[in-house]
Amino acid sequence: MTDAADPLVLFMPSGKRGRFPVGTTVLEAARSLGVYVESVCGGRATCGRCQIEVQEGQFAKHGITSSNDHISPVGPKEKRYAEVRTIPQGRRLSCSATIQGDLVVDVPPDTVVNAQVIRKAAIDRLIARNPAVQLCYVEVDEPDMHKPLGDLDRLNVMLHKDWGLSDVLVAQHLLPDVQKILRKGNWGVTAAIHRDLETSRPNLIALWPGLHNEAYGIACDIGSTTIAMHLVSLLSGRVVASSGAANPQIRFGEDLMSRVSYVMMNPDGREAMTKAVRQAINELTAKVCAEAEITPDSILDAVFVANPIMHHLFLGIDPTELGQAPFALAVSGAVHTWSREIDLAINRGARVYLLPCIAGHVGADAAGATLSEGPHRQDKMMLLVDVGTNAEIVLGNRTRTVAASSPTGPAFEGAEISCGQRAAPGAIERVRIDPITLEPRFKVIGVEQWSDEEGFAEAAEKTGVTGICGSAIIEVVAEMYLSGVISADGVVDGAMAAKSHRILENGRTFSYLLHDGAQKITVTQNDVRAIQLAKAALYAGIKLLMEKLGVETVDTIRFAGAFGSFIDPKYAMVLGLIPDCDLDEVKAVGNAAGTGALMALLNRDYRREIEETVTRIEKIETALEPHFQQLFIDAMALPNKVDPFPKLASVVTLPERKVLADGDGEGGGRRRRRSRE
Amino acid sequence: MTDAADPLVLFMPSGKRGRFPVGTTVLEAARSLGVYVESVCGGRATCGRCQIEVQEGQFAKHGITSSNDHISPVGPKEKRYAEVRTIPQGRRLSCSATIQGDLVVDVPPDTVVNAQVIRKAAIDRLIARNPAVQLCYVEVDEPDMHKPLGDLDRLNVMLHKDWGLSDVLVAQHLLPDVQKILRKGNWGVTAAIHRDLETSRPNLIALWPGLHNEAYGIACDIGSTTIAMHLVSLLSGRVVASSGAANPQIRFGEDLMSRVSYVMMNPDGREAMTKAVRQAINELTAKVCAEAEITPDSILDAVFVANPIMHHLFLGIDPTELGQAPFALAVSGAVHTWSREIDLAINRGARVYLLPCIAGHVGADAAGATLSEGPHRQDKMMLLVDVGTNAEIVLGNRTRTVAASSPTGPAFEGAEISCGQRAAPGAIERVRIDPITLEPRFKVIGVEQWSDEEGFAEAAEKTGVTGICGSAIIEVVAEMYLSGVISADGVVDGAMAAKSHRILENGRTFSYLLHDGAQKITVTQNDVRAIQLAKAALYAGIKLLMEKLGVETVDTIRFAGAFGSFIDPKYAMVLGLIPDCDLDEVKAVGNAAGTGALMALLNRDYRREIEETVTRIEKIETALEPHFQQLFIDAMALPNKVDPFPKLASVVTLPERKVLADGDGEGGGRRRRRSRE
Repeated sequence: MTDAADPLVLFMPSGKRGRFPVGTTVLEAARSLGVYVESVCGGRATCGRCQIEVQEGQFAKHGITSSNDHISPVGPKEKRYAEVRTIPQGRRLSCSATIQGDLVVDVPPDTVVNAQVIRKAAIDRLIARNPAVQLCYVEVDEPDMHKPLGDLDRLNVMLHKDWGLSDVLVAQHLLPDVQKILRKGNWGVTAAIHRDLETSRPNLIALWPGLHNEAYGIACDIGSTTIAMHLVSLLSGRVVASSGAANPQIRFGEDLMSRVSYVMMNPDGREAMTKAVRQAINELTAKVCAEAEITPDSILDAVFVANPIMHHLFLGIDPTELGQAPFALAVSGAVHTWSREIDLAINRGARVYLLPCIAGHVGADAAGATLSEGPHRQDKMMLLVDVGTNAEIVLGNRTRTVAASSPTGPAFEGAEISCGQRAAPGAIERVRIDPITLEPRFKVIGVEQWSDEEGFAEAAEKTGVTGICGSAIIEVVAEMYLSGVISADGVVDGAMAAKSHRILENGRTFSYLLHDGAQKITVTQNDVRAIQLAKAALYAGIKLLMEKLGVETVDTIRFAGAFGSFIDPKYAMVLGLIPDCDLDEVKAVGNAAGTGALMALLNRDYRREIEETVTRIEKIETALEPHFQQLFIDAMALPNKVDPFPKLASVVTLPERKVLADGDGEGGGRRRRRSRE
Repeated sequence: MTDAADPLVLFMPSGKRGRFPVGTTVLEAARSLGVYVESVCGGRATCGRCQIEVQEGQFAKHGITSSNDHISPVGPKEKRYAEVRTIPQGRRLSCSATIQGDLVVDVPPDTVVNAQVIRKAAIDRLIARNPAVQLCYVEVDEPDMHKPLGDLDRLNVMLHKDWGLSDVLVAQHLLPDVQKILRKGNWGVTAAIHRDLETSRPNLIALWPGLHNEAYGIACDIGSTTIAMHLVSLLSGRVVASSGAANPQIRFGEDLMSRVSYVMMNPDGREAMTKAVRQAINELTAKVCAEAEITPDSILDAVFVANPIMHHLFLGIDPTELGQAPFALAVSGAVHTWSREIDLAINRGARVYLLPCIAGHVGADAAGATLSEGPHRQDKMMLLVDVGTNAEIVLGNRTRTVAASSPTGPAFEGAEISCGQRAAPGAIERVRIDPITLEPRFKVIGVEQWSDEEGFAEAAEKTGVTGICGSAIIEVVAEMYLSGVISADGVVDGAMAAKSHRILENGRTFSYLLHDGAQKITVTQNDVRAIQLAKAALYAGIKLLMEKLGVETVDTIRFAGAFGSFIDPKYAMVLGLIPDCDLDEVKAVGNAAGTGALMALLNRDYRREIEETVTRIEKIETALEPHFQQLFIDAMALPNKVDPFPKLASVVTLPERKVLADGDGEGGGRRRRRSRE
C-alpha cells in the first residue's frame, strides 16, 4: 500500500513511525500504527478529541524535517469546530488534517475538551490510555419496511461499519430505551462500548442521543481504615477529583482479624459489613462526582483494589476462610462484574474490575502497588513494602518476583504503645535525643517550633502534648538506641538512671521520660519490645524473600501507604525495619495501590500485565518457613543481630554493640510470663 | 494416530464412523467424531448419562460385523454403577467400555437416569441435542498455602483440565457461595456451564456440591391469548411437562392492536403488561415444575418465541412503534439475556434466549414455526400459515423463502360473527347442509351425536346449542356456498327463501337459520362478509408471496396454531383461505412456534440456523404492495375469482358460478356505510 517515496510520520511520545500516502488523515495513520488517539465522533470533526500538534523542525536522528506546511491546511470542518468550540493554538483535529509531507506529530496526553473542573492533580505521572470503554458516535439508518431490521440491529450494523465492532452484546436494560434514544438523537447516537479482554464480545453498555462527549471512571482502594477514590475522565485520562473516607466497617472491628471474628460470631455480620462498605463507596462516589460537577450516571467503568478481606467483604464473600490456615481465597484471579451486581450507584451498565489477589494475605492492593511501582518492569532489585497491621512485601525485578505478608501487628500505628496515639494536633511527630545529656527535643503536630525553641511552650498550650504518633515512635526508639538509652537488644539501660533523670525505674524494667508536662509521656520497655516485635516481623519477612531470591542487598526500596509517607527512612533503617540500602533509594510512594487501580482503569493493557505478573509472583507463606523464626530472632536486635548495615553506617554513627539483660532476655520472640513470677 | 488396521466404529443414528485404536473408550471415540453423548461425571462412571448399546450383527453395507465381544467386558466401575443405580439390559457406559473390535454403536436418544415423572409426551419428534448448558463434574485440588490460588481459580483449573474450558466467566452471584459448595462437596462439585455462541466465553452459571445429575430448560411460546410452555430435561431431551395458561394481558385488550393502544393511552400501561406477562410465565413455570416434581431453581436455560408485540412487552420494550408505519422493531435479532434481568423466577444464573423476529408483524413465533417446519430445509414449495388476528405467512423452499403478515382480523376466531363464540360445550363445531333441502345437520361440542341423530335433543339439553365456534364458521360458510345458499361472491341468495324456511330476510339482506332452538342461530350476510374479508386478506397475502417467488402452486401446506388444528383443510380450501393443493399435503402442525422454541432450547445449532435463515428470508410488507388490493378483491370470491382449484375440484363438486348483488356489491374490500341510507 505504501512505498518508500511516501511521507514519513513519527508519532511522539510513543516513537512509532511509518510511511503513509499523501492525503491519509493523521488519525488513520495513528490508528494503523497502534497509536492511541481518541475519537468519539468517528471522524466528523465534532468531538474534538483527536487533537494533535505538529512539531516543527529538523529531526536529524529520525531523518525528518517536520513542518506545518506538511499537513493539510485547516479545512471547513475544522474551521466549524473551532468556531463552535475552541481549539488551542497549534492544535489540529487529526481526523481532518491529512499528511502532505514528513511529519513529527505530538499526541498531547491530556486533551481537555469540555470545561472540566480540576481541583487537584491526584497523581503526577502520565498514564498511557487504552481504556476498556470507548464512545462511538454513529448515524443509524431510519427504519425501512422493506428491510425490517430492528432499530438496535441497524445500530449494530453501523457499529460494525464505522467502528469495526462485531457481535456486540447489548445490555438488557438498554432494550426498552433504544427506540426513544434513536429518535431523540434524530438517528445520531453515541454508544458506550466496553471491551476488556480482546477475546470478549464488545458490550454495548450505555447509549445517548446525539454526540455524547464525556465518559468517566473511578479507581478505588478499599483499605481497612480508609477508602480512597480517584474520579477520572476516560477520554482524556485526567483525574478530575480525588477523595477519601473512613471505612465504616471500623465499627465492626478495628483491624482485619477482628472483622473476620465479627463475621464468625454474627450470622448477619458479613452482610452488614458488605452493605456498609458498598454504601461508603457510593457516598464517596457521590462526593467526587459533586466535586467534578457530574452525575454518578456518567461513570462507566470502575476498578477496585483491596486487601483480601476487604476484597471479599466488598464482593459479598464470607472471609472466614481467610482467618485460618490455609487462608483460602474464594477467588484470587481478577474479577469482572457489573455495577448492578454489587449495588454500586453508578451507570447501570458500568462494568467493574478488581485486580487479582496475590495470596490469602497479599491482596489486590499489593497487586495494585506492584503494578504502580513495577518491580517486574526493571532490572534493579526493588523492595516494595506496604506497612499496616499486616505488612505486604513484594521483592524482585524483571527476572523474578516474590511476595509475602508478615504480621507486624498494630504497633507501628501507635496501638500497643503506652503513650501512642493517631497523628493529630498534640501528637509528638519528630524526636531527637542528645547522646551526651540524653535530653530530648521534639516536634508536636500543630506547633511550628521544636520543643527547645523559643515560643514552644506558649504555642503548645493550645494543642497540649498528648502522645506519640506512628512516625515519632520509630524516631524515639531509634534515637534511644543511637544515644545509648537502649542496647542493641532493645533493653533500656538502667545504669543510665544515674546519669539522667530521664531514665525511670518501673519495677524490674526502665523507661525513658520523653515529656514531663500535664501528661507524662514515657517510652517503656514494653513499648520498645512492641516496636521490636513489629519491625522484626517485617524484616524477617523481607529477609525470607531476599533469601528466596538469593540476594544479600536490595537496590531500591518503596514504602507504600500512609505509614511510609511520614516516617524518616533513616530512622526506619536504624531500627532495622528495612535492609541496608542507599538512603536516596528509599522512597515513600503514597497510595501506590490506588495508583495501580488508576492505571488499570485507564489502560486495560495494565490489567493483562498485572494478571500475568501475579501468576508469576512466587508466594512465600512466612508461617510455613522453618527459617522464619531464626530470622525473626536475629531481627529483634537493632538494627539486626547478624546483618551489617554498611550504607547506613556511612551516614549515621551506629553505637558499639552492648548487651544487657532484662526480664525477657533476648531469646524470646514473644513476651511470655516468666516462670519465677 | 489411527491406522487402517484399527477397529471401525459406526455410531447410529448419526451414521458417523471412524477407526480407533483398541482400548479407546467409546465416549472418546464418539466425541472425536462429534457425536453428542452426554457425560456429567467426566468419565467416572457415576452419572450414567453416557449409555450406549452395541448393535450386534453383520452390517454388510458398512462392512462391519458388530458384536458384544468387540467391546470390553463390564469392569468394576460399571459394575458399581449398576449396583447403585440400575442400567437397562444391554446398555453400557461409554466412558468405561472400550473398543476391542468393529462395532455398530447405538446412542439412545432419551437416556433416563433419574426417575423422571412423565405425564405426557408433548411432541412426537426426536430433537438431536446440543444444548447451551453443560454439566461438568470436577474434583478440585484442596487449598495449598504454597500455591495460593483461590478456590474458584482452582475450580477453573480443573474445568480447563478435565473439560477443555478456558477463560470461564463466573456469574457474580456464585462468588459468595463457592467456598461453602466446594467444602460441602468435599472438593467434588458440578458446574453448570452455559455457552451459546462458540465465540463467547463459557459462563459458569450454577454450582452444586458433589455430582449433580439433572438440568432443565423451558421452551415457551407467548401468544396473545395463550402462553404455552414445555419443561425439558436438558440432559436427556425428554419433555417432562407441558402446559398452557391464558395471557393475562387480555384484560388490557383482546387483540394486539388494542394492547398497543392501551400502552399509548396509559403512562403505566407498558409496565403493567410487562409485569402481567412475566408473572403469568412464572406461574406457569411453577405449574410445570410442580407437575415434574422439580423446583424452578433447576431450570438453567429458557427459550422464548412470541409475536413482535408480545416479544417487546415481555422484554419491557414499548411496542408503540409497532402500531404504526414503518412498524420498527426495537430489536429484530436474537436476544440473549439473563433470567434475573427480566424477573424470571428460575435459577438465578439461568440464561434466556429469544428467537429473532422476521419483521414488524412477523415475529419470533413465525421464526419458531419456520425452524420447526423447515421450509428452508427442503425442496418442496411449502406454505406455512399461522392464523390469528394477524396471519403470519412463510412461503419457500431450500432456495428462497419469503414472509409476510396479513391482517385477517378476529373473524376466524369467532369475534365479529353474530353467533360466534369460543370453542366450549354448546358451540357448534361441525356443519353439513343438504344441497337439495338446504337442511343443516351439525355437531355440538359436548354432545356425541350429530343433530340429526337419535338422542341428540336429550344430550344437547345439558349443553344447549349456544353459538358457532371458529371451525364451524369455516364449515358453515363453505357448506352454504357448496349448497348454493350463497353465491361465489358471498351473497346469500334471497331467491332461495321461496325454497326453504332456512333463508330469512333481514331488511335488504338474507341470512341462513342454522338452528331454531332456545337461541336462534343464524349466519347473516354480515357474517359471510366478515369471513370473506378475513380469508381474502389471508389469501391475498399468500398470493403476493407466491407471485414474489414466481410460483403458481404450492406443494405442501402447514397450518400452525390452534386454529389450524380444528379446521377441516377441505373446507378451508373451498372457502379459498389457502391455494389449491393436494388435500393430503395440508397438515395441521399444532404449536409449531413452541416446537421451534424447544428445538432451539435443546440444540444451539438450531439457534444459529434460524438466525441465519431469518437474515435470508425476504419480507414483504403487504401494505406497500400496490398489487395487494387487486389480489384481495379477487380473493373475496369463493374460492377465488380468478384462481382455479383443480385439485380441490377433483374431490369436491364446486358449484357453478352465479353472481348476485347485495348492498355491498363485490367491488369493496371494506364495508362502508351506504350513502343512500
